[in-house]
Amino acid sequence: MEGEPLSALCTPALVVDVDKVKRNAQRMIQRCNKLGVQLRPHMKTHKTLECADVMTGGSRRCIVVSTLAEACFYADHGFDDILYAYSLPFDKVERCAALSERLDLFQVLLDHPEALEQLKNRPLRNGRQWHVWLKLDCGNGRAGVLHSEPEALSLARAVSLTDGVELTGVYAHCGNTYNCRGVEQIHAVAQETTTFTLQFMEKLKAVGITCKSSIGSTPSCSHPVDDMSQLSEVHPGNYVFYDTQQSVIGSCCLEDIAVRVLTRVIGHCPHRNQLLIDCGWCGLSLDGAGKLPTGYALIEGHPDLKLVSMTQEHGRVEPISGPLDYSKYPLGSLLTLIPYHVSNSSLQKVLLTK
Amino acid sequence: MEGEPLSALCTPALVVDVDKVKRNAQRMIQRCNKLGVQLRPHMKTHKTLECADVMTGGSRRCIVVSTLAEACFYADHGFDDILYAYSLPFDKVERCAALSERLDLFQVLLDHPEALEQLKNRPLRNGRQWHVWLKLDCGNGRAGVLHSEPEALSLARAVSLTDGVELTGVYAHCGNTYNCRGVEQIHAVAQETTTFTLQFMEKLKAVGITCKSSIGSTPSCSHPVDDMSQLSEVHPGNYVFYDTQQSVIGSCCLEDIAVRVLTRVIGHCPHRNQLLIDCGWCGLSLDGAGKLPTGYALIEGHPDLKLVSMTQEHGRVEPISGPLDYSKYPLGSLLTLIPYHVSNSSLQKVLLTK
Repeated sequence: MEGEPLSALCTPALVVDVDKVKRNAQRMIQRCNKLGVQLRPHMKTHKTLECADVMTGGSRRCIVVSTLAEACFYADHGFDDILYAYSLPFDKVERCAALSERLDLFQVLLDHPEALEQLKNRPLRNGRQWHVWLKLDCGNGRAGVLHSEPEALSLARAVSLTDGVELTGVYAHCGNTYNCRGVEQIHAVAQETTTFTLQFMEKLKAVGITCKSSIGSTPSCSHPVDDMSQLSEVHPGNYVFYDTQQSVIGSCCLEDIAVRVLTRVIGHCPHRNQLLIDCGWCGLSLDGAGKLPTGYALIEGHPDLKLVSMTQEHGRVEPISGPLDYSKYPLGSLLTLIPYHVSNSSLQKVLLTK
Repeated sequence: MEGEPLSALCTPALVVDVDKVKRNAQRMIQRCNKLGVQLRPHMKTHKTLECADVMTGGSRRCIVVSTLAEACFYADHGFDDILYAYSLPFDKVERCAALSERLDLFQVLLDHPEALEQLKNRPLRNGRQWHVWLKLDCGNGRAGVLHSEPEALSLARAVSLTDGVELTGVYAHCGNTYNCRGVEQIHAVAQETTTFTLQFMEKLKAVGITCKSSIGSTPSCSHPVDDMSQLSEVHPGNYVFYDTQQSVIGSCCLEDIAVRVLTRVIGHCPHRNQLLIDCGWCGLSLDGAGKLPTGYALIEGHPDLKLVSMTQEHGRVEPISGPLDYSKYPLGSLLTLIPYHVSNSSLQKVLLTK
């Protein structure tokens, strides 16, 4: 779309501000350099080559993915040193083995002894080792073995003692930063996750095991605490775009958000004081459940408007208070949504505009 | 995947029971035959050629779509007599014109005089006419001109009087049937929508205008009222699959639902009495907001389990009451979700299994 105005786009359309993407990526690289930790950017938000290149500084090395489809996509395009950070899915062991035998460095993650059994039952060919990260739950309450449980240490030992398997690192996702409001709270969760992870690394060291450590989430890596410099890696992802949710958490300013969803007014409904727009939940995630004061998104330049509901291809917009002035929103006119939670899964199209 | 067991599928995976699809489609065809109305099935739920063939009885004629991408997809595969039932998007007028000039019968929909102006400003070539349906709001409260307002009649007259434009029909979507519980309530909304539409047709007749009429929604067309026989067409869509929402409304029985999302147990979390599954909101719509007693889906064969929350690729399942018996759900074992609202937009893959 180079050279064409945004108004030439058919809607709904995701538009990405490449300058902001580059700035967000550069800032994260600088932050990690300053901390002295390796940045392993997560691809799950955008799933594109363009953003992957920007986030890896063109190296196409050292990334993390959340699905095997992403892993294969990036492997097929010359990426390597890929960490598939998802509790080893037993149905995908053979495909993980194929990637491990094909790439220089493909890494998997596990949080249960049965997963280790799966790897033992499928030794890699040509003298290769499985590269395994142990998923630690440091308070997030999703996947991972609880950092405080003896099972965590015994599983790490079992991995490190298993032939054909190498304990590459310990991995914690501090997704509980998503409940934070403001830098102080983000710092508190980042500190707690870092402390728990480093304490676990000490326990490993005490039994003679050394390996890498990594924590991640966009809030914690946007506002790191000093102790994170003692980690080997961090693995944030959303920061390349940011979104309204991240601005509410305090990870970023509204000015940092690199994505918009363009939509057009397709209906005037004065009998219910609403506008209809051509963006429904096929074009914008339902995540967030419309809890923002402005509903499912911010409507740029119109803080008085609320996206109150969506069906598959329609959105209903109404004023937060008072009657709607329809003359300001002619049929066919553009509105610009700043999504609550940006994710490629809910988007029909990714456009990189310059 | 012919010949392979479902357990060989990588998860999450949408699976479709072709026999149920055919039965659902056949029943709707028979119901419409009995009523004496033309069935114009909607493609928005599945967006596949396979289901379109089943729903049209192989004719590849007389369908309705909700996006221009669907219209182009079906046109490219030999479908014709396509109604693009979306309030004319001004940015897509030129592409609508191209389809109108290319197909035997491409039809658009509008609900505002400004949309008519757009069509006047883009006369079709080779003596062709724009085929236009007037969208009437008969109580649904989304798109359409209110059936009771004088503007509805004046817009219909304006369409019919405009050179190069033909008033093909009057179209009402009774999406308000989605608020119904049980056949009696469905009948009431179906009757109201039919009555309002037929009253409007009488008003048109009084000023010398005759054209088609169509109403639709899966609930109303699954339980039609007698007066619907006076309509020209009906345009339901979801019925080819049905889903948990439709069973709650009363459109169908649970046994009629033709889709499942297969997922696997990837984590045991006894410290919070939960299972983790590999289906998040990338694999299952967030629509319905988890309001079912069983959360975001039914878990087939396990009415005691609830899908309480989802992130992008994870789901959290817990018992409705009491402690979880983990021995019943080994890591790697399959669970079968019956989605609340099925939609291809939220699905990664459509598999037709036999």
